[in-house]
Amino acid sequence: LAEQRLTDAIRGQYELFGFAPIETPAVERLSILNAKGGIQRQIFAVRRPAEDDSEQASLGLHFDLTVPLARYVAQHADCLTFPFRRYQIQKVWRGERAQRGRFREFYQCDVDIVGSGSLDLVHDAEIPAVINATFQSINIPNFEVRISNRKILTGLLAGCAVEPTRLAPALRVIDKSGRDGAAATCAQLREDGFPDRLVDAVAELLGSTTLDDARAVLRSHGAAADGVDELDVVMDGAGRLGMPAERLRADFSIARGLDYYTGTVYETFITGHEAWGSVCSGGRYDDLASYFSHRKFPGVGVSVGLTRLLDLLVQGEYLHVDGESPARVIVTMADRGRFLRDYLALARTLREAGIPTEAYLEDRALRDQIAYASAKGIRVAVIAGASELDNDTVTIRDLKHHIQEIVTGDSMVPYIRQLLAS
Amino acid sequence: LAEQRLTDAIRGQYELFGFAPIETPAVERLSILNAKGGIQRQIFAVRRPAEDDSEQASLGLHFDLTVPLARYVAQHADCLTFPFRRYQIQKVWRGERAQRGRFREFYQCDVDIVGSGSLDLVHDAEIPAVINATFQSINIPNFEVRISNRKILTGLLAGCAVEPTRLAPALRVIDKSGRDGAAATCAQLREDGFPDRLVDAVAELLGSTTLDDARAVLRSHGAAADGVDELDVVMDGAGRLGMPAERLRADFSIARGLDYYTGTVYETFITGHEAWGSVCSGGRYDDLASYFSHRKFPGVGVSVGLTRLLDLLVQGEYLHVDGESPARVIVTMADRGRFLRDYLALARTLREAGIPTEAYLEDRALRDQIAYASAKGIRVAVIAGASELDNDTVTIRDLKHHIQEIVTGDSMVPYIRQLLAS
Repeated sequence: LAEQRLTDAIRGQYELFGFAPIETPAVERLSILNAKGGIQRQIFAVRRPAEDDSEQASLGLHFDLTVPLARYVAQHADCLTFPFRRYQIQKVWRGERAQRGRFREFYQCDVDIVGSGSLDLVHDAEIPAVINATFQSINIPNFEVRISNRKILTGLLAGCAVEPTRLAPALRVIDKSGRDGAAATCAQLREDGFPDRLVDAVAELLGSTTLDDARAVLRSHGAAADGVDELDVVMDGAGRLGMPAERLRADFSIARGLDYYTGTVYETFITGHEAWGSVCSGGRYDDLASYFSHRKFPGVGVSVGLTRLLDLLVQGEYLHVDGESPARVIVTMADRGRFLRDYLALARTLREAGIPTEAYLEDRALRDQIAYASAKGIRVAVIAGASELDNDTVTIRDLKHHIQEIVTGDSMVPYIRQLLAS
Repeated sequence: LAEQRLTDAIRGQYELFGFAPIETPAVERLSILNAKGGIQRQIFAVRRPAEDDSEQASLGLHFDLTVPLARYVAQHADCLTFPFRRYQIQKVWRGERAQRGRFREFYQCDVDIVGSGSLDLVHDAEIPAVINATFQSINIPNFEVRISNRKILTGLLAGCAVEPTRLAPALRVIDKSGRDGAAATCAQLREDGFPDRLVDAVAELLGSTTLDDARAVLRSHGAAADGVDELDVVMDGAGRLGMPAERLRADFSIARGLDYYTGTVYETFITGHEAWGSVCSGGRYDDLASYFSHRKFPGVGVSVGLTRLLDLLVQGEYLHVDGESPARVIVTMADRGRFLRDYLALARTLREAGIPTEAYLEDRALRDQIAYASAKGIRVAVIAGASELDNDTVTIRDLKHHIQEIVTGDSMVPYIRQLLAS
């Protein structure tokens, strides 16, 4: 019930921004899933019934929603309207060691905007606004989207004459500075044999608190500042789209995956729970479907790990699971032998008024029926015996506040509506 | 988008009746999936990454939601409140030959009420009421729930002294009479060597149009009429719960699966499309989890094959897919160079008013932007150049009726709301 409510809220916000839902099969060809390399070792293979051994490895369960999106866009490009704005909320499977916060079967909620040939930078501004609206809608009290642009770090490293083969190791160390701190990062870079010139430049960049500071650092090391200029456009646009300035922070240490993102990168942290790690990450990529198509599809997007987020929200007591039933009302049966038909008609009336209602249909004592409703977290009980039904009335009991009142049949629905709204 | 709306409507009705959502993993142990026999040959096996061959066959994808429910109830019986009312909307996988109306990966929408030890017959009355509310909510103009009770046919066969081993073949023939007609059914029974006494009894039963007729047939053949009595209680209760009499018909030919259902059985046909077959079927079972538990869990439930229903509704043109975007409004950019920030702010205002809105963020001519919105089925365009923005106005164009009007900034939201509601 809690997960369903969380999913609905996320979906509602994605649709508010005009993203359309798509769904792709859970089972894809292994050749598709393996195309990008990376996490093959985590793929669950699927074997068709009565299939001979030679074909065993031909299918697998998808491990993310990006590879299926790439396959989908390449396959259906001729029918899609670009920029293609889609969201996708589906289970994915990964053969990881299951542990707290890591699952083998879990939900991801992805939004992406994919262009054909090109995609304007302003699209990157929508993503933080979507995250903000989404996290607000699920009542997370405080959170921060940290944003950077891959070109800033790669530009700085190039400006400091780091060899191309050493780029990835350097980025990997710098990416950890959000967790380990700038001092530890610089010490590690030095230990790994990077020149002082680079270590100093990184220290200056990580110490920058404004975009202008970062621009100055880049220029002083002979690097172009176009990554900062892009970040400027994106942060300004995000603000215009409703992202509060205090929830969006430039963080020049963010690098993320090494061979995938090419521009803007995002991570999202829940304030006070930064150790949980980023709960919503993504970025800009130059070419989504290069393995499946000769056409170029640049895009930008972000993914919420829903199952993990749900787990964290429940652990952190941000999410209260209110009962185990969507029913708000139970129609009890005080004298089932005589009035069963009346009770069923009462349940019908409440449902037709849009109030989720359960009729208690076992033959039990009234106190057992009330105990059952309380155990399930149902708020209101309708109780009626001969004295009520002969006078066209019912007793309405508020199971939360332990008060009850006799109302006429006609006022049952409005009375209960008011009670539930209070 | 269409499937999402269909799923939401079904879910809404299930919750209105107080069913709580559960979700079980797609991947179960093969020993669980195989416990009930039946369709092993259709199970997709799942292999863990880096698993050695000896373990290959230990996991599989679930092929229905009933076996996982049985496992779930047996496993969590101590934490559940009985009667346990759950709905479950998930994908299932079957290794069938894919063809029209048959898929290898598809959605099922199940509701079940499961008791511990016993479950009152009145619960069986809720199921047709749930089907009725659900099918009405998805705008199916006319449909019929056909209902029977397994005890009627098995009682009649026993009364006619059919040997236990011949019960299943006889039921299988009779179950087809809804499609083939009573005459063909009787001819087939005769051809299969069943005695005249039985063939005559079946002909009489299938010719019965009322419960009293059926009672008389059973009694005249020495069979108990308790199946008819149960059906009577269930049909009366369903009526009280809102099921219109003209949509619920006793059909004594319904037998359904042979070793599973023990009482009430349901099938649902869309009027004029009976050849599609039943789109929602189920029934009462005496013991859900006999393979997993020594406790007895009787239940009653029904399953909608969502993917197939969606396919049929689209084919039958009952379901119109209205555009490919949830966005109702597009904010166009007539002078992006000067007013980008204003356009983004307009999009924000509309979203904050709860109106799904896309901002067009590519740098294109206005007519391309309008063409894009029309292609996606977006209803309203917001257009603003210097002449509008300098006077705090915007032009609102109705892309469906090709009319437009200039309104003030403050009246943009109410004007668009009214347009969308019209």
